[in-house]
Amino acid sequence: MARLRRLVLERLMRYYRFLTESSAMKGAETVTSAQIAEALDIDPTQVRKDFGAIDLLGMGRVGFDVCEVCRSIRVVLAFDDHIEAVLIGAGHLGSALLAYKNFERYGMRITAAFDSDKRRIGQRVAGLTVQSTRGLKPYVKKQRIRLAILTTPMEVSQAVADRLISVGVEAIWNFSPTQLTVPDSVLVRNEHISLGLAELSYHLQR
Amino acid sequence: MARLRRLVLERLMRYYRFLTESSAMKGAETVTSAQIAEALDIDPTQVRKDFGAIDLLGMGRVGFDVCEVCRSIRVVLAFDDHIEAVLIGAGHLGSALLAYKNFERYGMRITAAFDSDKRRIGQRVAGLTVQSTRGLKPYVKKQRIRLAILTTPMEVSQAVADRLISVGVEAIWNFSPTQLTVPDSVLVRNEHISLGLAELSYHLQR
Repeated sequence: MARLRRLVLERLMRYYRFLTESSAMKGAETVTSAQIAEALDIDPTQVRKDFGAIDLLGMGRVGFDVCEVCRSIRVVLAFDDHIEAVLIGAGHLGSALLAYKNFERYGMRITAAFDSDKRRIGQRVAGLTVQSTRGLKPYVKKQRIRLAILTTPMEVSQAVADRLISVGVEAIWNFSPTQLTVPDSVLVRNEHISLGLAELSYHLQR
Repeated sequence: MARLRRLVLERLMRYYRFLTESSAMKGAETVTSAQIAEALDIDPTQVRKDFGAIDLLGMGRVGFDVCEVCRSIRVVLAFDDHIEAVLIGAGHLGSALLAYKNFERYGMRITAAFDSDKRRIGQRVAGLTVQSTRGLKPYVKKQRIRLAILTTPMEVSQAVADRLISVGVEAIWNFSPTQLTVPDSVLVRNEHISLGLAELSYHLQR
């Protein structure tokens, strides 16, 4: 299987969510590319192409076996690898992500939360006790953590990222509104929520 | 000024955040396109082009006046229009967005939160009392709300969107992992956080 590009991966995730979460799919054993395409507003040719890219074969008119599709996507996206992650920055957004148990369905579990703010250290958030960032490097090293979620203020994000990478972190899910500079081997996935406001506000202006 | 495209709007938002929030800019009166480009990992030509698109002129070597740039972006992105929004779905993510006071800096204020879950109705979240979705349409109509934030389960998102649009909502910030079908005049901005996991998980697989 060729290396899959980011947009293909995102569509696979959308197919998976549709097949496992949509009420329209409850109890369904088969699904057609047209059904998926319609629900997600994607071209049916694109759906079949994506399925082909992960070696999924349809059964003619009947379409695809739902279980088989889900299983294949789980394998490709490595949902069963059970990745452990740390979260740094236990503010509002950080706390929301900690509480968002849905991630575990995709094999990702946040095992520790860190903050440098004394008022937050020691607090319980979604079952975890917020730890001081002083303990971050030893923890990541000892637990061999490979994924970190950054919900830090933008001023400190680069420094935190550098520290994480120095102890073996290979991927960063960056929710802080800043551009991180990292080695080629490290993947940074940026989620810049506030950018959305620019588009919305522009559209709504009188 | 020509109609600005989405990616230009997002970059303007990033420039604004950098100029107003970065410690590197504290007390600075002028800024060069090279400085912005470096900090945000954007080509300096692109920065100048974006500034040109909103009629911002540099002052040669000195660069741009920080206040003037910020003012211009505020005007273009309509941050001073003070948009009121409603939020539907006061779960974890919804609560995080309610608590995220930073949006007010961009002129957006969430004035009411709704949920259909009896256990959530009546609860206080970030200063607001969660209301029953039964009161959603009358509220939106009476307050002339134009922006709605959807943090609902995917099954109900389309129905909620339809109801919102029927009473005048013109833009939807959609955090629910589903594709909404809306009239051409309505803008939907999708924020599909869990899609990020697909890319991260794929990168980290052994």
